[in-house]
Amino acid sequence: MNDVDFPAWMGQMQRRTEAALARHLPRADVLPEQLHEAMRYATLGGGKRVRALLAHAAGAVTDAAPDRVDVVASAVELIHAYSLVHDDMPCMDNDVLRRGKPTAHVRFGEATALLAGDALQTLAFQLLAENRVSENPHDQLAMIALLASASGSRGMAGGQAIDLASVGCQIALEALELMHIHKTGALIRAAIVLGARCGGRVEQDMLTRLDHFGKLVGLLFQVVDDILDLQSDTATLGKTAGKDANADKPTYVSLLGLSGARQLAADLLEQARSPLIPLGRQARRLDELASFIVARKY
Amino acid sequence: MNDVDFPAWMGQMQRRTEAALARHLPRADVLPEQLHEAMRYATLGGGKRVRALLAHAAGAVTDAAPDRVDVVASAVELIHAYSLVHDDMPCMDNDVLRRGKPTAHVRFGEATALLAGDALQTLAFQLLAENRVSENPHDQLAMIALLASASGSRGMAGGQAIDLASVGCQIALEALELMHIHKTGALIRAAIVLGARCGGRVEQDMLTRLDHFGKLVGLLFQVVDDILDLQSDTATLGKTAGKDANADKPTYVSLLGLSGARQLAADLLEQARSPLIPLGRQARRLDELASFIVARKY
Repeated sequence: MNDVDFPAWMGQMQRRTEAALARHLPRADVLPEQLHEAMRYATLGGGKRVRALLAHAAGAVTDAAPDRVDVVASAVELIHAYSLVHDDMPCMDNDVLRRGKPTAHVRFGEATALLAGDALQTLAFQLLAENRVSENPHDQLAMIALLASASGSRGMAGGQAIDLASVGCQIALEALELMHIHKTGALIRAAIVLGARCGGRVEQDMLTRLDHFGKLVGLLFQVVDDILDLQSDTATLGKTAGKDANADKPTYVSLLGLSGARQLAADLLEQARSPLIPLGRQARRLDELASFIVARKY
Repeated sequence: MNDVDFPAWMGQMQRRTEAALARHLPRADVLPEQLHEAMRYATLGGGKRVRALLAHAAGAVTDAAPDRVDVVASAVELIHAYSLVHDDMPCMDNDVLRRGKPTAHVRFGEATALLAGDALQTLAFQLLAENRVSENPHDQLAMIALLASASGSRGMAGGQAIDLASVGCQIALEALELMHIHKTGALIRAAIVLGARCGGRVEQDMLTRLDHFGKLVGLLFQVVDDILDLQSDTATLGKTAGKDANADKPTYVSLLGLSGARQLAADLLEQARSPLIPLGRQARRLDELASFIVARKY
């Protein structure tokens, strides 16, 4: 698997992640059927799986068993899927399109979407508690705490709250960065650190480097998202294009202009790659992923 | 503490639970302030804390350190609080009154209420991962898995989905029971078993008895809830009275009549007490709690 080129590796890991999620989600013929159908609908069949790819790429740095990484990658993708379901609801972003399909609340109704998001979050923690992801159970408890901390009120959910409060406001670049470090950055960092911690060969210096890479890649991801929101079209994105600008949300493009945002992305990519250098060839997939995040079209 | 009478013990445990929750919840002056304020609003300052009381009463059976039981009791109450916030939202029960105060979405808006519920759930798992609740970390992982399983799509959230699907439907007593075993029963059982598992002296036979007690007490709680919904008034309940009957929801009273529901409660109380007998005097608070659940007025 380490010999194939990046697109082939990415395709393999995406299929692997889809299969792991399909296995871990409750079957749609198990009671309550509609809830389980909604959970599967919101999670399966789409998405770039950037977080899962980052977890596997970080696992390669520490020689982690891919079966273990599958568990943390699934947990992180479940948290991501729950956040999208709730974020799309009418009381939040009120969006009707996601990954090229109607959003969960359009398809199943708001009440079922709300419960499906809730249950997806629960399932993420259940996976991390029920499946062995580390030799040391104390480490495993710390990994659960890390996912919770990255997802909760001082992580992803907190970032969404700051985002809500910022609509229509003039905010400074620092405030925008703070919001994104929470909203998308925290879970991306967690994906990388959790993937690495599945391995046997985990040193603190390595984790510090990977966490630093994760912080920069999280920001990079968001800067590129803001550029794509403005530049791409709805069919390519699979979600409503131009939404943030229309919603009068502050973005990197609105603050820095298009060329400023592009320059920032180039700078962040360079900064993100540097902590990987001492990790050598085993960090190659992380490096390739950072470049992919900048080059992506959706 | 074992010498005081039941009302004094209950008051002590309620104050203890309130203090533990206040300590574990993020402070309202920490960013994002409004989200943290909403989380505290939805959790603190009210509630009978039946689940926390059951956890402490079960912990007494296994000589559990009350400080450890505080953690599982807080986690269970956080899950309960999140479920109330989401359950009260317009797309679910659309309720405006809870514990005698405006519901979270009335007070803070729907978007913040949605995020606060999400973050309360996350915090529950964070507490169980960050604080020592068992000597054995493998046991602690199993306790996290138990809380997740009781809360998720085949537990509490699943029960709410079944409840949604049953509005306006004629359902049989068995289906009503199945719904409640999930919706309220699963978390009540989990509270009892988690409280007991905090102790050092945990035998499988004991857990089986406590789990059986928990299953019956969970049903008992719901039967009494249905009676109170019909008989009490909004001021006493602190939530809208007569709501289930008005919403055309099937209840024990609608299926069995008032005297039938009362008889069922008396039968369940007797059945629930019997597995406690071999546990002796240490199970006394559980026995008293079961009686309290029947006698309560709100």
